[in-house]
Amino acid sequence: MSAEYIKSIVKTVPDYPKPGILFRDVTSVLEDHSAFSSSIALLLEKFAPLNFDKIAGTEARGFLFGAPLAIEMGIGFVPVRKPNKLPRDTISESYELEYGVDTLEIHSDAIKPGEKVLMIDDLLATGGTMVATANLIRKLGGIAEHAGFIISLPDLGGEERLKQHGIQCHSLCDFDGE
Amino acid sequence: MSAEYIKSIVKTVPDYPKPGILFRDVTSVLEDHSAFSSSIALLLEKFAPLNFDKIAGTEARGFLFGAPLAIEMGIGFVPVRKPNKLPRDTISESYELEYGVDTLEIHSDAIKPGEKVLMIDDLLATGGTMVATANLIRKLGGIAEHAGFIISLPDLGGEERLKQHGIQCHSLCDFDGE
Repeated sequence: MSAEYIKSIVKTVPDYPKPGILFRDVTSVLEDHSAFSSSIALLLEKFAPLNFDKIAGTEARGFLFGAPLAIEMGIGFVPVRKPNKLPRDTISESYELEYGVDTLEIHSDAIKPGEKVLMIDDLLATGGTMVATANLIRKLGGIAEHAGFIISLPDLGGEERLKQHGIQCHSLCDFDGE
Repeated sequence: MSAEYIKSIVKTVPDYPKPGILFRDVTSVLEDHSAFSSSIALLLEKFAPLNFDKIAGTEARGFLFGAPLAIEMGIGFVPVRKPNKLPRDTISESYELEYGVDTLEIHSDAIKPGEKVLMIDDLLATGGTMVATANLIRKLGGIAEHAGFIISLPDLGGEERLKQHGIQCHSLCDFDGE
């Protein structure tokens, strides 16, 4: 199955979470086993040749694609979580939202210096979550230069922003303001 | 790798999230690719012969094991989430915690009547989350008779409670109050 097929399965929910927003709903991809398997196969094809040591996925939808991809690639998976969810020693990174600030955490021993980490999330919007994830990995001495997504919203400029932070992006489906 | 190996990788964090609790930390299994791959392989070996139509995984750690298992079994994955996280029409189910009440939601169209659903979570404690998940699946007409876990805490009586609700359990590692 192609990326076009996956794009056809993504449901668009108008006015969610607030009026005027077209929400791209990736859960419809999960529920369709052909689309879900294809999304993992396409990410594998793209990223396997780059030889990563670990995958980092961001809570909670990044877990849904990052964990299966780690299994397929034969590497470990590192969860990046909201505050106070990880039980051992953590480091944290805050980043700005449209209104307010959010924080992500990672276990301090999850990445070893020099490890090459692939970052996975379901959707690239402005890129704030992914920059914070890269900063956490880099604080631990890891290499964070690649990020993969199922969906990208190019109008929001996330790819350009990540490039400025030294992160190359790959997404399976782009949705312009269509 | 055996279930004993997976058990040896689970880290125990004393006094988390509060004094006197021995927290069994499954993130150490994710970070070790042999343990993570083995956990999915052992669940596959157990459940593949039972021919499920879908896997339901509960936010957030249930995503980490349920999503890869769905890929391996060639079936769709249905996320069961905290309130206001799913963008389309949902149904909800509340359940009691030690102090207070929690609620889970599922998309109304995620399960079709008669579909046989395997429920996956990382850890079985008292079983409250899993009973609520089964109730959601049953409200949609699905069959919810099997649940799989990486870790079980038999002292808390979850397996017996789930049996009373018509749910058979299978867990890879049991931790008594050791």
